[in-house]
Amino acid sequence: MTDVETADSYPLSPRNRVKRHHERGSYDRTTVHGLLDASMLCHVSYVIDGQPYCTPTFFWREGEKLYWHGSSASRMLRSQSEGQKACLTVAHLDGLVLARCGFNHSADYRAVMAFGTAYLVTDPDEKRLALVAMVDRFFPDRTAGLRQTTAQEIKATTVIAMEIEQASAKIRSKGVADDDEDYELPVYAERIPVRTVLGASEPCPRLLGGVERPDSLRGYSEGRLLEEALRDAYFVQYPGG
Amino acid sequence: MTDVETADSYPLSPRNRVKRHHERGSYDRTTVHGLLDASMLCHVSYVIDGQPYCTPTFFWREGEKLYWHGSSASRMLRSQSEGQKACLTVAHLDGLVLARCGFNHSADYRAVMAFGTAYLVTDPDEKRLALVAMVDRFFPDRTAGLRQTTAQEIKATTVIAMEIEQASAKIRSKGVADDDEDYELPVYAERIPVRTVLGASEPCPRLLGGVERPDSLRGYSEGRLLEEALRDAYFVQYPGG
Repeated sequence: MTDVETADSYPLSPRNRVKRHHERGSYDRTTVHGLLDASMLCHVSYVIDGQPYCTPTFFWREGEKLYWHGSSASRMLRSQSEGQKACLTVAHLDGLVLARCGFNHSADYRAVMAFGTAYLVTDPDEKRLALVAMVDRFFPDRTAGLRQTTAQEIKATTVIAMEIEQASAKIRSKGVADDDEDYELPVYAERIPVRTVLGASEPCPRLLGGVERPDSLRGYSEGRLLEEALRDAYFVQYPGG
Repeated sequence: MTDVETADSYPLSPRNRVKRHHERGSYDRTTVHGLLDASMLCHVSYVIDGQPYCTPTFFWREGEKLYWHGSSASRMLRSQSEGQKACLTVAHLDGLVLARCGFNHSADYRAVMAFGTAYLVTDPDEKRLALVAMVDRFFPDRTAGLRQTTAQEIKATTVIAMEIEQASAKIRSKGVADDDEDYELPVYAERIPVRTVLGASEPCPRLLGGVERPDSLRGYSEGRLLEEALRDAYFVQYPGG
């Protein structure tokens, strides 16, 4: 990883350049996309009347566009047809790092910050496609078998979109990394892995007789990493990446 | 959960009132604190020159004050002694909810948004205590056995603090919740639990002979929920809550 632009990287500016631990930064589109597609939950920051808000929500990517589910900013966006600056962030926590001094205590993680201008999806065709993708991106082809969405439900769902103008990834994966002389100390040090995993499926107790779990959900199996299931589902739904 | 103030709740205003699905909102300090203390990773939003930033970082709570590790905002805060508005958010993803229609697809989650004014910790005593708490809040009493922090390291570490002025919790835990008439449909529906768990400890390969894992880390055991280990550690370090 370097902090130079390449043919496949996002343009760099002070907005997205990784400042602390710049050696952990990457601006490569493939790296950024891979981390985004391994996530379901993001946090989005907006400013409303000078006040920053950090809202957790669900999102997905289509090419260089990010979509997410309506939030407290929807009302504000409704009155701002030119859109609103936003920053969408995902973070994967991979491990806790206990070092031989306080300063080198750390964590292994993978994070992405994406910058752009958020707008409310109001075009009927874009919104219709987004409401399908909002389900099918996570559970491929699921919408086709569901009760159809009503006009009232479409109206009640807000979808926000943002073209990624700039982004950065920041990755730490080295575990314990002490100062050379500290390895001579009789201090215990370790890395504790952290994983976000799926539990056993809990079928709705009110399923009709004969209704079985569809084969398309087999990727969501007990003990599997959530991010693996999400990445696989993404690839089924968006084979082009 | 209601959206009224009580003796033990944060004051309500449009800033922290839960707007979408207000029935999921709570302003109770005990609820908010409990969710914060079960987390290590937060996302903080700031505004720098009109641009929102959403930065993932590590944080902890002391009473009504939140502390977190320096971030891209540190430089900006250095020049603003009056502080800067911020929003610190944590979110726990508990389950994916697959319903009988697209509209009722959802997730079970627990989230907190906390609002206040962030400032750089510059007072030497507050900073010294914060640098100890930054480690000991997660790994009780660990700092006492570590190589001492140097003056250079203290200088190189930025700590940011924020008194919680207002906060809200938002919790969904009901799993599949379809419209009454949709339960008659032959559509598969389920909840898929999601858990963030600890893996097996990975001792540093360069430990000196005879150095053993201290008993104080026994809460961080393989297969345990990260949030349980964090909550237990918090209670050891801050018995008063």
